Amino acid sequence: MNKPTVTLLISCPDQKGLVATFANFIYGNEGNIIHADQHTDFEAGLFLTRIEWQLDGFNLTRDMIPSAFAAIAKPMQAVWQIHFSDTIPRLALFVTKQDHCLLDLLWRWQAKEIHADIPLIISNHTKLQAIAEQFGIEFAHINIDKNNKIQQEARQLELLKQYRIDLVVLAKYMQILTPEFITQFPNVINIHHSFLPAFAGAKPYHRAYERGVKIIGATAHYVTADLDQGPIIEQDVSRVSHRDTVADLIRKGKDLEKVVLARAVRLHLRNRVLVYGNRTVVFE
Amino acid sequence: MNKPTVTLLISCPDQKGLVATFANFIYGNEGNIIHADQHTDFEAGLFLTRIEWQLDGFNLTRDMIPSAFAAIAKPMQAVWQIHFSDTIPRLALFVTKQDHCLLDLLWRWQAKEIHADIPLIISNHTKLQAIAEQFGIEFAHINIDKNNKIQQEARQLELLKQYRIDLVVLAKYMQILTPEFITQFPNVINIHHSFLPAFAGAKPYHRAYERGVKIIGATAHYVTADLDQGPIIEQDVSRVSHRDTVADLIRKGKDLEKVVLARAVRLHLRNRVLVYGNRTVVFE
Amino acid sequence: MNKPTVTLLISCPDQKGLVATFANFIYGNEGNIIHADQHTDFEAGLFLTRIEWQLDGFNLTRDMIPSAFAAIAKPMQAVWQIHFSDTIPRLALFVTKQDHCLLDLLWRWQAKEIHADIPLIISNHTKLQAIAEQFGIEFAHINIDKNNKIQQEARQLELLKQYRIDLVVLAKYMQILTPEFITQFPNVINIHHSFLPAFAGAKPYHRAYERGVKIIGATAHYVTADLDQGPIIEQDVSRVSHRDTVADLIRKGKDLEKVVLARAVRLHLRNRVLVYGNRTVVFE
Amino acid sequence: MNKPTVTLLISCPDQKGLVATFANFIYGNEGNIIHADQHTDFEAGLFLTRIEWQLDGFNLTRDMIPSAFAAIAKPMQAVWQIHFSDTIPRLALFVTKQDHCLLDLLWRWQAKEIHADIPLIISNHTKLQAIAEQFGIEFAHINIDKNNKIQQEARQLELLKQYRIDLVVLAKYMQILTPEFITQFPNVINIHHSFLPAFAGAKPYHRAYERGVKIIGATAHYVTADLDQGPIIEQDVSRVSHRDTVADLIRKGKDLEKVVLARAVRLHLRNRVLVYGNRTVVFE
Repeated sequence: MNKPTVTLLISCPDQKGLVATFANFIYGNEGNIIHADQHTDFEAGLFLTRIEWQLDGFNLTRDMIPSAFAAIAKPMQAVWQIHFSDTIPRLALFVTKQDHCLLDLLWRWQAKEIHADIPLIISNHTKLQAIAEQFGIEFAHINIDKNNKIQQEARQLELLKQYRIDLVVLAKYMQILTPEFITQFPNVINIHHSFLPAFAGAKPYHRAYERGVKIIGATAHYVTADLDQGPIIEQDVSRVSHRDTVADLIRKGKDLEKVVLARAVRLHLRNRVLVYGNRTVVFE
Repeated sequence: MNKPTVTLLISCPDQKGLVATFANFIYGNEGNIIHADQHTDFEAGLFLTRIEWQLDGFNLTRDMIPSAFAAIAKPMQAVWQIHFSDTIPRLALFVTKQDHCLLDLLWRWQAKEIHADIPLIISNHTKLQAIAEQFGIEFAHINIDKNNKIQQEARQLELLKQYRIDLVVLAKYMQILTPEFITQFPNVINIHHSFLPAFAGAKPYHRAYERGVKIIGATAHYVTADLDQGPIIEQDVSRVSHRDTVADLIRKGKDLEKVVLARAVRLHLRNRVLVYGNRTVVFE
Repeated sequence: MNKPTVTLLISCPDQKGLVATFANFIYGNEGNIIHADQHTDFEAGLFLTRIEWQLDGFNLTRDMIPSAFAAIAKPMQAVWQIHFSDTIPRLALFVTKQDHCLLDLLWRWQAKEIHADIPLIISNHTKLQAIAEQFGIEFAHINIDKNNKIQQEARQLELLKQYRIDLVVLAKYMQILTPEFITQFPNVINIHHSFLPAFAGAKPYHRAYERGVKIIGATAHYVTADLDQGPIIEQDVSRVSHRDTVADLIRKGKDLEKVVLARAVRLHLRNRVLVYGNRTVVFE
Repeated sequence: MNKPTVTLLISCPDQKGLVATFANFIYGNEGNIIHADQHTDFEAGLFLTRIEWQLDGFNLTRDMIPSAFAAIAKPMQAVWQIHFSDTIPRLALFVTKQDHCLLDLLWRWQAKEIHADIPLIISNHTKLQAIAEQFGIEFAHINIDKNNKIQQEARQLELLKQYRIDLVVLAKYMQILTPEFITQFPNVINIHHSFLPAFAGAKPYHRAYERGVKIIGATAHYVTADLDQGPIIEQDVSRVSHRDTVADLIRKGKDLEKVVLARAVRLHLRNRVLVYGNRTVVFE
């Protein structure tokens, strides 16, 4: 599967002939589909699909595909994205002091589980600088306080531009991004250390302990202007008992946070996630 | 294990010698402990324990045990309950129109998974009357509307008294019990069709669908005056995807509700649950 | 979604243009696809797909569809099945003495979770006859011993024919069907009370206990001539501990068996399962 | 909880008064029990317990405890171990070429989730030497082939002695230890990449793929002379589908292997695991 492929992610109002139209566009140009999946949300009247085909042997060149498909998509009022598998996405990781998600993502990156470049780590502390150096990644220390957030976010955005970043991953970044940041750079995945919508906001493990829950969770979601309210990509849970202290919940939660965030990042990078409204379709 | 046993559930301020004191009380009277488990909540400074021993061969008669133990418990400021395994607890099931939890509990009762008598089913509708009849259980139809709740709860309480009920199980009872009811009859287990504290209140599956969660849950808890806020006994979850409609969530949720409620009822009836504050210790 | 639909399940050697060809067949005849999913097994060189579309407005009548599609399928060496959603499949349940899977399936049937007719229950004992009567289903007692299996299976097959049965569900049927039976009636789903391939054969819970496993499971699979070796449709697991006796494993296992079997039957009846080799594709 | 504690792990024939006897030994010497848990295996007629108390204020010195307890244990035919929480156990990690379990354990060690010293890594390859160096751990390359296993195991045992190793963790060590090795050094934990007893032996993911299972697992167990047959400490599972290739199973399996092995090692190091026969009691 190492030959380059093209992936289309499409959402459009449901109507007859959509599968045929899209398949004909690809087959008519000699494309070989290797993955196609679709979902119809009947309530929303929406058709959502992901189609992936091999670039080799396709009649249209890479440059021609977007405009050729745009002609087909327009009458259908389709919203779409196109991705080429040999265009390596570029990630920036935002962290604070906790290293578990950062290290986990970097190991998976090294183990080639995460197909991306990671040229930049941004942190509001210096604690994790040594890890960045060990992996040969640029580390930008941008401290945030009550008074400087707007200027510092401007610096962050400048760096994202400079490093041509496609996706920001908040790998335990203990700051809230302003709506303005999200408007300018909307491609952000966060890991929240609870089973959302339970325990949104601060100190979820302490509150889970106080509530006496028997199961804890973690949630990876796209970041929107509403804190902890963005579209959920992935969640997972772990059983706990009365024997678990807050410290135990935190420790067990770390294992959840790592795998849930890594799965979400991997799904996003493989163009498996389609957002519509505040929901995601995950084409696994 | 069918010989009668005595079970003590004790909570008291943590102090040296508690295990020895309680064990000596039993061993000193020739008791054979078959299960003992304890938990210390260091934050709360509380020692919580469950001890079960065989009645046969014990030096104290059934009648003497409570007063004998009270003498030991008092200086320790212990709160305690005593249960004899051959005293069969009596259950009342409260239902509305949905039958899945009711049928599930009755089947487990018939299969002897639930060790109790079930002499009474109370419902605010008549729909499930035939099931009560099929299992030979008295069915009381007590309709509830805006204006009659207080009188009707009085009738319910009267029936609980008349049938000498020990535990009420809300097996999809779509009415909120008043704080007054709970004050008079505090032994009530409810099944809530969400992973509390997420989606407390009405229509949790609709709200879970709208939020786009990837996992749904169910929660069995003791009922307190605060709606959906009582001590949690058991929770479980099930994975869902974008392909699941609200109807699918409801269907999948039913399977969760059944097993979570049944487990909670069984744990309670086997005297495995100790409530302290708003938390439970489950001695499994 | 209650209007009749047509579902095609197709497997054929992978080649260019398959999605387009199948979609064009439907769209060219004015069909409205409501579900389409495909999977390519690159190792096996196989393309597998499920397509469902609305019969209303389709240009071809019900009778014409098979031959029309056969003309398309032939050059592609496709193996295919066609199903109409308003043709209600007919089930026979085979049981012995345990009632939990039987009752569970019958309740789901009553609750319309299982979209089928269930005209026949066959058992090698009489213990569950009353349940059949309660649900108004014909109960055939066909005892099996060492010497009469072949004749008795002939009687079973005769009944399946007489009742026009489409699917046999072994809902804790404690007899092994002969390869001859399977040859004559290959559509059989079994529930095995272990996480196959662990503990194939008899007494899996006893053996799980002896092995000291920390998790038990259940497996629903199609029955083939090789005992417990058929294609797996669904599996699930449950955590156990040293505190669980064999009786506890059996009790916990029952809950697994019920849901795993019910899910498998439901997937089959909704034509979501495609078998190839000894594997299944489950189009969920 | 950072003050030193004493932990007793005891198994003995079940008899009256065991809880009282052990509790009195501790309380009689002014010990403050902070954790006590017991289990009776009625079938085996065995009583198994774990008791932990604070050393501060205990009347017996560290040196006196074993002989004092031996006098109590002897008439009860008890088998027992004693552990002091401030005696840091020493681990050796055996690895081959895969780094995921090694890195995971070392990260947890650095994060103080694993309370031990790790002075030694032994490998039959040199590939992971750089990781050992990065963490400042001695790396011994001891290659194994058909002809040299006995001599090389002698070298390994020599190193274990020299480094005063208490526990060997096979963190993806792709060699089978001889029964002779186990006889001389019986404290060995292995991670097997399947849900044992399913897929014991080589290439479990390939065989899981061929069998078409819907769930994969991992198992951490003590190593005995019988390959993959030792007492199970911990297992966990992960759902897979027809879309998962062997490579996907291997990738998903890595996440299981890491957490299952880490949990088992942590349980062992906290003296939570008691082996009897081929089973474990896990006092969580």
